Amino acid sequence: MKILGIDPGTAICGWGLVEKSGSSFKLLDFGVITTDKNCPQCDRLHSIYTELSDIIKKKQPEAVAVEELFFFKNLKTVISVSEARGVITVAARENRIPFFEYTPLQVKQALAGYGRADKNQVQQMVKLILNLKEIPKPDDAADALAVAITHGQSNQELMQNSNLKSQSDN
Amino acid sequence: MKILGIDPGTAICGWGLVEKSGSSFKLLDFGVITTDKNCPQCDRLHSIYTELSDIIKKKQPEAVAVEELFFFKNLKTVISVSEARGVITVAARENRIPFFEYTPLQVKQALAGYGRADKNQVQQMVKLILNLKEIPKPDDAADALAVAITHGQSNQELMQNSNLKSQSDN
Repeated sequence: MKILGIDPGTAICGWGLVEKSGSSFKLLDFGVITTDKNCPQCDRLHSIYTELSDIIKKKQPEAVAVEELFFFKNLKTVISVSEARGVITVAARENRIPFFEYTPLQVKQALAGYGRADKNQVQQMVKLILNLKEIPKPDDAADALAVAITHGQSNQELMQNSNLKSQSDN
Repeated sequence: MKILGIDPGTAICGWGLVEKSGSSFKLLDFGVITTDKNCPQCDRLHSIYTELSDIIKKKQPEAVAVEELFFFKNLKTVISVSEARGVITVAARENRIPFFEYTPLQVKQALAGYGRADKNQVQQMVKLILNLKEIPKPDDAADALAVAITHGQSNQELMQNSNLKSQSDN
């Protein structure tokens, strides 16, 4: 199963593609979409839409996973990131890819096993789970990979839960 | 010139189409896109995208105008409205319609002539400018028409300024 994780943003939007087979994950590709801060916001949002649509068409993920926005530094940031999130939703849906959202708590729990893990611990786990020599750079791409892994883990847990349930039902 | 004004929102997204000829405005159509609050946000955003794209394709506006978000009641609202705004931007751009934004202050000044006008004064001006018997309902549609008129007024002012400039240049 190919999962595309996305760390939304207008200036820099991270993406990371992983393949999950059984309980293991493999890194397929990652990168960032950057937009020029001197361009109008509508042009920047449209760039994200077209570049992300291209990535989806080329890489053919079976799921798109994005981190939910839960905190913010200032109103301008929250507006800008939310606008990018809206655009990402449409890019996924227009390409008929199922769309999933995870809270930062879910990402931390899925990767590091506890909700108070810091950013660096999560990124170290990305490196470990994907069997990499270094943490992927920039941070936005590493964060996107963390969300992709979270989706894979959640599916796995759902399957495990459903297996456990069917065992207990028998 | 046909202008489509939009009042963004996820639960209810108002739209209003006006035609401007010379300095006068004519109401062409208005309405709202509503989405089911029990549906996931990504489905609601995608509904707005597809319905708005349909309206743009059918009505063929020459400009899309949206009010900028400047204040908010709570974080959940600002995220939701911003996501809808991102979606609206893409719907306009994917249909190759120029996209414009106006602050609430600009809308108030364009309609009522001063920035402290209240919501009702702006809506009364929508009724007056469009030569209607009643204020269009719901509020979201009236607000969308106000933004469309703002864009028309701004263009007019730009043209006047440019005429004045060319007169003074001669």
